[in-house]
Amino acid sequence: MTLMELWFTEEHTKNVRFSIKVDKQLVSRQGDFQRIDVFETKEFGKVLTLDGFLMVTEKDEFIYHEMITHVPMAVNPDIKKVLVIGAGDGGTIRELTRYEKVERIDMVEIDREVVAVCKEYLPQTACKLEDERVHIHYEDGLKFVRKPVNEYDLIIVDSTDPFGPGEGLFTKEFYGNCFKALTERGILINQHESPYYENDLKAMQRAHKHIKSAFPISTVYQMHIPTYPSGHWLFGFASKGLSPTKDLNAEKWNGLGLKTKYYNTNLHLGAFALPNYVMELLEESSL
Amino acid sequence: MTLMELWFTEEHTKNVRFSIKVDKQLVSRQGDFQRIDVFETKEFGKVLTLDGFLMVTEKDEFIYHEMITHVPMAVNPDIKKVLVIGAGDGGTIRELTRYEKVERIDMVEIDREVVAVCKEYLPQTACKLEDERVHIHYEDGLKFVRKPVNEYDLIIVDSTDPFGPGEGLFTKEFYGNCFKALTERGILINQHESPYYENDLKAMQRAHKHIKSAFPISTVYQMHIPTYPSGHWLFGFASKGLSPTKDLNAEKWNGLGLKTKYYNTNLHLGAFALPNYVMELLEESSL
Repeated sequence: MTLMELWFTEEHTKNVRFSIKVDKQLVSRQGDFQRIDVFETKEFGKVLTLDGFLMVTEKDEFIYHEMITHVPMAVNPDIKKVLVIGAGDGGTIRELTRYEKVERIDMVEIDREVVAVCKEYLPQTACKLEDERVHIHYEDGLKFVRKPVNEYDLIIVDSTDPFGPGEGLFTKEFYGNCFKALTERGILINQHESPYYENDLKAMQRAHKHIKSAFPISTVYQMHIPTYPSGHWLFGFASKGLSPTKDLNAEKWNGLGLKTKYYNTNLHLGAFALPNYVMELLEESSL
Repeated sequence: MTLMELWFTEEHTKNVRFSIKVDKQLVSRQGDFQRIDVFETKEFGKVLTLDGFLMVTEKDEFIYHEMITHVPMAVNPDIKKVLVIGAGDGGTIRELTRYEKVERIDMVEIDREVVAVCKEYLPQTACKLEDERVHIHYEDGLKFVRKPVNEYDLIIVDSTDPFGPGEGLFTKEFYGNCFKALTERGILINQHESPYYENDLKAMQRAHKHIKSAFPISTVYQMHIPTYPSGHWLFGFASKGLSPTKDLNAEKWNGLGLKTKYYNTNLHLGAFALPNYVMELLEESSL
């Protein structure tokens, strides 16, 4: 037994703090784009933070990564070519590589150092980054997406928050280029912040406004991520025509026999059933 | 501007802390059953704690109180007689009194002091405690529920956690008496803890096991309550025959024209679509 007390604290707002007891800081590196830390903790296993913001914990990363991949894959089980932006921890890639039909995954991560750290310290998420279908491009996603036309069936924007290196991934220009890069049955999924605290909900409204101006179909879906601010987190679903609920192919997805810990096709529908106040925030943002 | 720093901190587990910046402690009383505090905060408005556990905040109490009342009322819009156990803050009563058809509400609160404090400091929730249909009994709910037979259309157990004064409200004896006290179309709703942190999920499993042994229909539904541990909170729905989803009377409920901030009849269905790991915890508890 030790009396040592080491705590990681994140400010969810200026008036709200979330603190996790740390056994040990495993690594701390200042990369070209951000500071990268990994902590060993009793409650959450290993925890990755970027610039002091909690990104991934071993305990609940399955919620984030299952919800960002299986929702679009169950709407269009014929997705073959995927572009993933961000996602340096590898969790999104891990879930995507479970689909045999997926032929190619281009992953665009601005920060080479994040991938290196996760390969070394977070094998739970980084375990499939060497899959032969995965092609990693160390570039700015905002620039990468300017070139491709009618090329990807799915784009997943697995970004950090809309400041620092992730900022460009929340702009109108970026979403317009995503539209162009997608095929006719293409789907865009993006990390869409939270509806609860003031700064998060403003980012959520801005993102929705920009995506809605680029895509005919645009909505959000919700999940419980206990280690993110408020625990009430949203992803965006946008497409050129596919509906996230009416086009859900539950039978086909269930036929794949993928074992999941959070996602299922009933929950898929439930995740799009939003609270009134969230729907009102979305409507407000489009005015 | 002031440099004053005053923080309320709750241990969500021994390794996780949630802290709220406090402007001022408005009241602190040691009652016969528990310590009662109300804080003024910038982020959440007024915050009520019992024995140091956060119970109610003005910012998000609507989620808890809408979900604990409108879910059963939308399944059986003919509910006339209601028993509410706990609920000293008045939020559940406030929502129930919005239904004209409700004729009588028996509220059983063990702690007279909680009601007194809330009437003085939390009018946002306590505003309908004087409604003429409301009859407050300052008694132990565990004892109160031994007498009535076939009397209530709805019992809401709006309890604290399963230790301290709320402990008896999670026992097999208690749920058995609730069954007896309910009419044929009766519904039991209870505060059901959370599936995420170890201690909470064990309480959740025990409660489910006990309710399931007393009621033919027994399940849980989920919501986002940002100020509770993990933000992923559950209520139990049990009945003698009514299904929480198949018997949802969406048309009739929507016909009432009640304005809500969280609840709607689509979200009602979505709330019962549980993550796989939560379903597994429930199944495990019944083995």
